[in-house]
Amino acid sequence: MKELRNISPRRVCLADSMLKLIGLGLSADLITLRSLLELMKCKRILIDSYTSMWFPSLDSLIDILRKLSKHCVKVYRESLEGKAINEIIAMSREEDVCIAVAGDPLIATTHSSLIVEAFKQGVEVEVIPSTSILSIAISLSCLQAYRFGKCVTLVKPRNGIVFEYPIYVIEENRNRNLHTILLLDLDVAQGYYMTPKEAANLLVKLQERLGKRVLDYDDYLIILGAIGSEYGSIQVLKLYELIEGEERYNTPPYTLIIPAKKLHPMEEECIEMLRLRKLYFRPRISMTDIYKVIRVLSSDYE
Amino acid sequence: MKELRNISPRRVCLADSMLKLIGLGLSADLITLRSLLELMKCKRILIDSYTSMWFPSLDSLIDILRKLSKHCVKVYRESLEGKAINEIIAMSREEDVCIAVAGDPLIATTHSSLIVEAFKQGVEVEVIPSTSILSIAISLSCLQAYRFGKCVTLVKPRNGIVFEYPIYVIEENRNRNLHTILLLDLDVAQGYYMTPKEAANLLVKLQERLGKRVLDYDDYLIILGAIGSEYGSIQVLKLYELIEGEERYNTPPYTLIIPAKKLHPMEEECIEMLRLRKLYFRPRISMTDIYKVIRVLSSDYE
Repeated sequence: MKELRNISPRRVCLADSMLKLIGLGLSADLITLRSLLELMKCKRILIDSYTSMWFPSLDSLIDILRKLSKHCVKVYRESLEGKAINEIIAMSREEDVCIAVAGDPLIATTHSSLIVEAFKQGVEVEVIPSTSILSIAISLSCLQAYRFGKCVTLVKPRNGIVFEYPIYVIEENRNRNLHTILLLDLDVAQGYYMTPKEAANLLVKLQERLGKRVLDYDDYLIILGAIGSEYGSIQVLKLYELIEGEERYNTPPYTLIIPAKKLHPMEEECIEMLRLRKLYFRPRISMTDIYKVIRVLSSDYE
Repeated sequence: MKELRNISPRRVCLADSMLKLIGLGLSADLITLRSLLELMKCKRILIDSYTSMWFPSLDSLIDILRKLSKHCVKVYRESLEGKAINEIIAMSREEDVCIAVAGDPLIATTHSSLIVEAFKQGVEVEVIPSTSILSIAISLSCLQAYRFGKCVTLVKPRNGIVFEYPIYVIEENRNRNLHTILLLDLDVAQGYYMTPKEAANLLVKLQERLGKRVLDYDDYLIILGAIGSEYGSIQVLKLYELIEGEERYNTPPYTLIIPAKKLHPMEEECIEMLRLRKLYFRPRISMTDIYKVIRVLSSDYE
């Protein structure tokens, strides 16, 4: 059915399909009602399987969507970038195309180029935001949100190229007494996930190479792993403990937080508590729950 | 029923109640399944009604929770701070106490002091994170996440005191070519919400007072209002347009984003598109949906 839809204050047009970017949040526990509703309403769903992981697993979500008769495919980087963008936009003129992404759909640059291109070609776009590691890492860290500086991804050296940039970001944040979120490199297609220990060694190597002393061995690091999953954990370790200890972080993806040099007394107390107690996020939502909720939300639309 | 629960790697104890901080996200659309499940399982719920707003309304959520026989009360700042903290902790030794907060529960400092105190007194705490304006503002802004500097709240002058700090934060971010999230002051109890226009005038006044030129009249501002609600909007205006135009932002709370001086070409294109088209977030989840979902999630526990 053609629907009269207001797409700008200046013009009204007949639009019967659009492109939707849907955030899946970090996990079944951390998905929003709106994203479930959108998945239910969409016939053609492309599941971005390279940006990050989703718990318990993207495959279990795909199973459910297929059970609900959705045309649902897993896609990789090459299907959402470059030339593929025009194909997606063409498709979304025929029927709603939903691109579902773990976390929030617009943290990755790739997806914003898709929006710009769709806008240019006159295709309507809707963004359904969701839970993101960027705010949840802050929330679970015990640190104050307004004391975070710019965030950065620590990238594994590749083809002899060592990416020095992250150490400069951390240095600048620490010089301004700000915390840093350090996303650890991952390559889902290759099954590569930088571990916290690997990251710690890389940081030390980087600062030695550049003759800097950004981090001391007894500085605290906050280590978040697989947030939203049953293996999810938040730990506080000193840099030397991370380097010398055994690698005990089995489940990616990982995020480190490097606290500012000087903490607020409340932050300090809270970090000390975290260090002693180990906070776990225990998932309680099952894929059966997801299925039931989608069915309930669908009932008005069938 | 007493439940054997592992609270640290070193000890196992009998815990039959705990303190939970539950994020409600920004709205019915942006609430997570986990938060709904937790609300359903909790008997005693304190709804923090001063941190921010929730859409369609906290009262409609309270109605539903009461219909489900929850002991559910709206609380104000004085009931979650200072001396009240000990009362809450004492209560949570008797039965689960859930403090439900719009957005993510740990963005406000108040709630981290509650956690620290509970930890000190040996009470278990669980944090259920949620969608937050801090990441959703980034996501909906078209700007790249790793180019955001520290965020800050623009506070209304009170009792003759003018808070100059925000202009320094914006200046520092802009000198480093970073974007700034500027949360606008609100006082839910007093019904005060700083408007975008009020904010723009205050910023100009601040920089005149300090003899700075941090913002030019033709710099772009991204204005987010009531995200998650049916009045939610994202607009791009130049500073002078905001100052000279009529106040057209009827629904708080508001957040401004002040882009860096130099934009990435993709950011520039995307902002131009946003400026032309006006993006709306159209809510689709009703309170009836929330009720139905809670009922479905409850069915395994009854």
